[in-house]
Amino acid sequence: MAVQRAWKGLLQEYRDWLPITEQTPRVSLCEGNTPLIPAPNLSKKLGLDVHLKFEGLNPTGSFKDRGMVLAVAKAVEAGSRAVICASTGNTSASAAAYAARLGLRSIVLIPDGKIAYGKLAQAIMYGAEIVPVQGNFDQALELVRSISAEHPVTLVNSVNPFRIEGQKTAAFEVCEQLGEAPDILALPVGNAGNITAYYKGFCEYRNAGNVKSAPKMLGFEAEGAAAIVRGKPIPQPETLATAIRIGNPASWQGAVHAAVESGGVIDSVTDEEILAAYKLLAREEGVFCEPASAASVAGLIKRRASGELLPGARVVCVLTGNGLKDSDIAIQSSALELNSIPATQEAVVQMIMQTK
Amino acid sequence: MAVQRAWKGLLQEYRDWLPITEQTPRVSLCEGNTPLIPAPNLSKKLGLDVHLKFEGLNPTGSFKDRGMVLAVAKAVEAGSRAVICASTGNTSASAAAYAARLGLRSIVLIPDGKIAYGKLAQAIMYGAEIVPVQGNFDQALELVRSISAEHPVTLVNSVNPFRIEGQKTAAFEVCEQLGEAPDILALPVGNAGNITAYYKGFCEYRNAGNVKSAPKMLGFEAEGAAAIVRGKPIPQPETLATAIRIGNPASWQGAVHAAVESGGVIDSVTDEEILAAYKLLAREEGVFCEPASAASVAGLIKRRASGELLPGARVVCVLTGNGLKDSDIAIQSSALELNSIPATQEAVVQMIMQTK
Repeated sequence: MAVQRAWKGLLQEYRDWLPITEQTPRVSLCEGNTPLIPAPNLSKKLGLDVHLKFEGLNPTGSFKDRGMVLAVAKAVEAGSRAVICASTGNTSASAAAYAARLGLRSIVLIPDGKIAYGKLAQAIMYGAEIVPVQGNFDQALELVRSISAEHPVTLVNSVNPFRIEGQKTAAFEVCEQLGEAPDILALPVGNAGNITAYYKGFCEYRNAGNVKSAPKMLGFEAEGAAAIVRGKPIPQPETLATAIRIGNPASWQGAVHAAVESGGVIDSVTDEEILAAYKLLAREEGVFCEPASAASVAGLIKRRASGELLPGARVVCVLTGNGLKDSDIAIQSSALELNSIPATQEAVVQMIMQTK
Repeated sequence: MAVQRAWKGLLQEYRDWLPITEQTPRVSLCEGNTPLIPAPNLSKKLGLDVHLKFEGLNPTGSFKDRGMVLAVAKAVEAGSRAVICASTGNTSASAAAYAARLGLRSIVLIPDGKIAYGKLAQAIMYGAEIVPVQGNFDQALELVRSISAEHPVTLVNSVNPFRIEGQKTAAFEVCEQLGEAPDILALPVGNAGNITAYYKGFCEYRNAGNVKSAPKMLGFEAEGAAAIVRGKPIPQPETLATAIRIGNPASWQGAVHAAVESGGVIDSVTDEEILAAYKLLAREEGVFCEPASAASVAGLIKRRASGELLPGARVVCVLTGNGLKDSDIAIQSSALELNSIPATQEAVVQMIMQTK
């Protein structure tokens, strides 16, 4: 037998590549080991060899689990009994899940006002303590930074350095799944930690002799939040791709370094381009991701149209989150009108023939 | 390197175990290869060695992908250009995804009246043609059966025999991940196809000499839909676990056979027991599943309390779907009240101390 062995999660599988010690608890939700799904229809359309690294199949539905498993394990190692973050989305879900598993408290500050319970459903289920504060996101972030500096509670927002260390494991997996590094790695850029982490991972793997090269890194911001592309922070970032609606990326320099050194680029895509790619992925490849995730594919389509990518190049697009996290947008973007018909074979067959 | 190889999906990985030919298209969303997550807190509580087979991390978020990939591939092999099903949930999502990938039409009949768009979001995104009919679910199912019998469109509801063949691969994976069959396999029972498929898989694997034994099969229906337990169909099944709200299971005999021959049982659990297990999984193990999925753990807790399971037994509980599919229930079941506080360090620290 043994088609498959049990995947033990990132802290076990990549222990030699991560800053862990004998004392680091080997917590695991079996994160990582996400599929690299070939995209035959998109490949044909673009004349490229496109694969989708579907990070939405991590345990809490996003790539955040890769960094969070390490951040929470290191918090326990350091003697902490609570983690804290400012987040209304994927970060809070991931922090709460690992905290739950290790019996830690997880405290999540959210900006007051428009509380979207749907986005918080995961954190609530995992038992996080939600604290709405009368302020905006930046104020909430400032509060968790100052509180964690003075109290025995560990900050797990992206300024926690272990987050990027854990996230770099996705680059290792891509190399292992392809047998070599891809020519191009395309991914969404919000806070810019992920592009920083991938590039770090590819370089480490190459420097160790595991692969011959590192890919060109193509990072794509949403146009309404394109701080790096415009060269200055955006005070009021706007995009429907909420997971990358960030006006002042924490890992700005890391992103620029990755793009420049790899011969790649940081570019932006419009919400229309993001939505088009989001629908294309579901309707032609059968893959349902978060809207923000589709920025990688939207950007690839844009750059390919400009004629600069070599035909046949091997490309990996990172899909950072699961579409189920944001099914409201799915429904709104479909503008569906359903009119019922009689429950007879005749009526149904006629309907099917009409829309053929 | 090579910590990990690329998983190629069920039709490639288990081709020797499935009814496929040279002509069967090797379609894949890299389904299967789902994690077997240890449940240390639940294990301690119950004095058992419990693992969770988290099928919610399949590409469309449920175990249905295992059977659907084969059913849709066989439809293409037979020359079909369209698939049809009656479903408001996981089946329609999975059918639509694979149809999209292969360029087939997917037609989904739903009962008119209370159309829950959230549940249909996936099928809509994958491009399914949704047909609401003025009738109940049974009428919709009867229509797709009769239409597929007379027209060139393939029925992919659970009466399609390829569904169970594909689903049995989950048993292979469990054996490979553990290195042996577990002592006990616990899972939710709705239409009863999954328990039938798992048992078939375990027996085939044992008969081929890959493992020494097959597990005791413990299947759990929701009390308000416990047709097998009561020995008669339930005309109006009721349970909050919508994925197993089925009053007349299609694979009734398969479920009874699996339970009797393996020395197991078909039992029922109340909605309260299901909700308690659902919360426990999220809050203590960090795993967020569909409410119906938690019937496996609810049932295990019930049977353990009755004292009949051997201490230390190795148990696998199947979690059939992703909690993100039904986040409304997550929020309702939490009865959360959030009152905002001033955005000052003092106020936040005081709040955190209070709830400690």
